[in-house]
Amino acid sequence: MKPTVTIEYCPKCNWMLRAAYMAQELLSTFADDVYGITLQPSETSGKYNIRVNEQVIFDRKEQGRFPEIKELKQLVRDVVAPEKPLGHSDKKAE
Amino acid sequence: MKPTVTIEYCPKCNWMLRAAYMAQELLSTFADDVYGITLQPSETSGKYNIRVNEQVIFDRKEQGRFPEIKELKQLVRDVVAPEKPLGHSDKKAE
Repeated sequence: MKPTVTIEYCPKCNWMLRAAYMAQELLSTFADDVYGITLQPSETSGKYNIRVNEQVIFDRKEQGRFPEIKELKQLVRDVVAPEKPLGHSDKKAE
Repeated sequence: MKPTVTIEYCPKCNWMLRAAYMAQELLSTFADDVYGITLQPSETSGKYNIRVNEQVIFDRKEQGRFPEIKELKQLVRDVVAPEKPLGHSDKKAE
């Protein structure tokens, strides 16, 4: 079974649109590599984390910021499709 | 555990945006009632169906059309939160 990416977001913080945008970015790149992307309203205020199956790959609380899309695609790629080239998103941020 | 709603869509048919739009409509209404909404790229061409856990509540192939949002919210509500009032979306379509 292909992996599931979950974006857990705080609905009271009005982060649904942000989470849905990131889900669409991931789907546009990884449609063939994942089972699906789950948008999960969090019961914890201020939470925004992204998991591949059970593995947390980005946690807003730890990082003190939201992920950039390029960074997020690299993080997801490294787990779900390590050999997959990402084109422009493969260049390291400077 | 709260139920998961899954929208399985055909990515080759360019239905990702439609699926993501419907997911956001459902999240704006059912954030407290569901575990999450999963966007699942289908491996079957032309597929667009919506499930609550394993139960199919709408299948484009069967209906010959996409669901309307009001209708979709009623279908989801009837399974995940039967007592929940939906305001304007509760009026029967004529």
